[in-house]
Amino acid sequence: MPGLNERIDVRQLEQLCGAVLRAAGADSQGAAACVRILVEAEMMGISTHGAIRVPDYARRLRSGGIDPYGVPRLERRAPSLALVDGKNALGPLVGVRALEAALELARESGIGWVGCRASNHFGAIAPYAREACDAGFVMIAGTNASTTMPPWGGAALRLGNNPLAVAAPGAGGAHFILDMAMSVAARGKVRAALNEGRKIPEGWAADKNGRPTTDPAAALEGFLLPFGAHKGSGLAMAVDLLAGVLSGARFLTDVVTWVDNPDRPQGVGHFFLLIDPARLIGRTAWDTAMARFRALVRETPAADPAQPVLLPGERELARRAHVLAEGLLLPAALLDELRALI
Amino acid sequence: MPGLNERIDVRQLEQLCGAVLRAAGADSQGAAACVRILVEAEMMGISTHGAIRVPDYARRLRSGGIDPYGVPRLERRAPSLALVDGKNALGPLVGVRALEAALELARESGIGWVGCRASNHFGAIAPYAREACDAGFVMIAGTNASTTMPPWGGAALRLGNNPLAVAAPGAGGAHFILDMAMSVAARGKVRAALNEGRKIPEGWAADKNGRPTTDPAAALEGFLLPFGAHKGSGLAMAVDLLAGVLSGARFLTDVVTWVDNPDRPQGVGHFFLLIDPARLIGRTAWDTAMARFRALVRETPAADPAQPVLLPGERELARRAHVLAEGLLLPAALLDELRALI
Repeated sequence: MPGLNERIDVRQLEQLCGAVLRAAGADSQGAAACVRILVEAEMMGISTHGAIRVPDYARRLRSGGIDPYGVPRLERRAPSLALVDGKNALGPLVGVRALEAALELARESGIGWVGCRASNHFGAIAPYAREACDAGFVMIAGTNASTTMPPWGGAALRLGNNPLAVAAPGAGGAHFILDMAMSVAARGKVRAALNEGRKIPEGWAADKNGRPTTDPAAALEGFLLPFGAHKGSGLAMAVDLLAGVLSGARFLTDVVTWVDNPDRPQGVGHFFLLIDPARLIGRTAWDTAMARFRALVRETPAADPAQPVLLPGERELARRAHVLAEGLLLPAALLDELRALI
Repeated sequence: MPGLNERIDVRQLEQLCGAVLRAAGADSQGAAACVRILVEAEMMGISTHGAIRVPDYARRLRSGGIDPYGVPRLERRAPSLALVDGKNALGPLVGVRALEAALELARESGIGWVGCRASNHFGAIAPYAREACDAGFVMIAGTNASTTMPPWGGAALRLGNNPLAVAAPGAGGAHFILDMAMSVAARGKVRAALNEGRKIPEGWAADKNGRPTTDPAAALEGFLLPFGAHKGSGLAMAVDLLAGVLSGARFLTDVVTWVDNPDRPQGVGHFFLLIDPARLIGRTAWDTAMARFRALVRETPAADPAQPVLLPGERELARRAHVLAEGLLLPAALLDELRALI
């Protein structure tokens, strides 16, 4: 429907989001980190983790759930290992600090693992992945989250929809970026369906009694279902072990819900692993192999000729390039909400 | 049906499998590595990757597809990074060499990444994971494989069913061991259905024209389907990037098929990442958190009270303990086949 969307330049959106966060108490570093991650997600088309999150972040800053004065502190453990105590700062500030530390370790030693504790929602992982790939590094990263799923076979919330990302740099920006959560569909998509008055497809969620539902309201009171049954459930646990337990962060039901407890620290954990492929097989061999990998996947005959086979991240990176030139189309109501928060 | 199964002691099975492999040309080290991984998988109940593989390994040794004289060579790249040139030796010999190297790196520096190239089928990952956990380390590992799946949206074989494992040690052997392949069901299970004259469930596979099938023979000529649609497909690519491309190994369609080319090296790649949790958060904090993690998952109310919620690896480790005491029940035909190969 025309009129629902408003075109906005990327730089303008960055300024707008930064102003909202600063008005809510964030300092310039915290606001910049959020803009860097959330607007980047918006550019990549991951709108569930884009500008729509800025009002949430602002609310939690105002309510004291996030500490606007928190300064994440790096703790080096070994030449290739570190932790970040997030000090309950804005999640993207913690995430960006950890990514930069992991990049530094990997530049020095070829590999760097950085775990974070006492953090908050840090946005989508794809924006961090793009930065790691632009710097030439392979990345594996993940985060835990407050509970939205039962473990497989269970009938109560115990597991976060803990996303996992694997990314690998391609020459000329042709990166492989897989960033996936463990539910069949994201909670943000269920929320979007509720906002837009749509039902959700079968298989996405169960109501609070564990019965399958297509009602987004019942789904939000119940639980999301893991993709691939026991496999997605097991992978969600694995990410919690790596991001939560191994970082000394909270995990499983100890992670505080973003929505229900706006004034309490979440205690989220993340991890970033960066590897320099040049140190293992050499940059030229890596670039050549990546180009062949990409070609082999993209040349796969498509089941539907109108839908060519793509690599994870390909659509998002193409959208990003388009948006940089053409600007973004965002819901006018969201932009109005942001402007009212300055 | 009684009579179909024969009880055999674990040590007897080890001797039998070792003798078959030595008779096919393996030296004592190669045979021991295979026994260590394949019989361990059998003990854990992963029978698709257990003793049934021994005749396959023996055939490939005899046909020259695997080099019985290959000695995997370690190449150190940095204090926490190494590669293993598998020299087309038996896969488990390459895998065990890499695991031991990664353990050494992680003992020294807190973290170790070892990639392998020029390897072969190396068995299930769970047996390696149990060893890493027994030594106190967190492990992420994976391998590529010859093609059995199309990438999502594709209609031709391009992707291996590349398994990924994440494992974390619990005090007293209560480890978390997730070892999963990327298809809805394993190729071995399709082969088992064919051998037993059963149909396979819908959703497991497509025939060679990309049409869904429940006929195991048509499925083996066609392709397995990834779990979670684009998610399982993306994860299979990610594992190939980490295990194949990053190790300088073959990848995607370049990995040689085990079955169709018994006399050609496969060129499989693997990776092992080991992390010492004691170096990050301390052993006591780790053990305490793991115990709480385990309790939170296991105490989840079950959807079906007869099916309590389990952690990945729990069933396998319980079975292993039982089998060590009680011996294994294996198909008599398989044991006869093994005895005939000595």
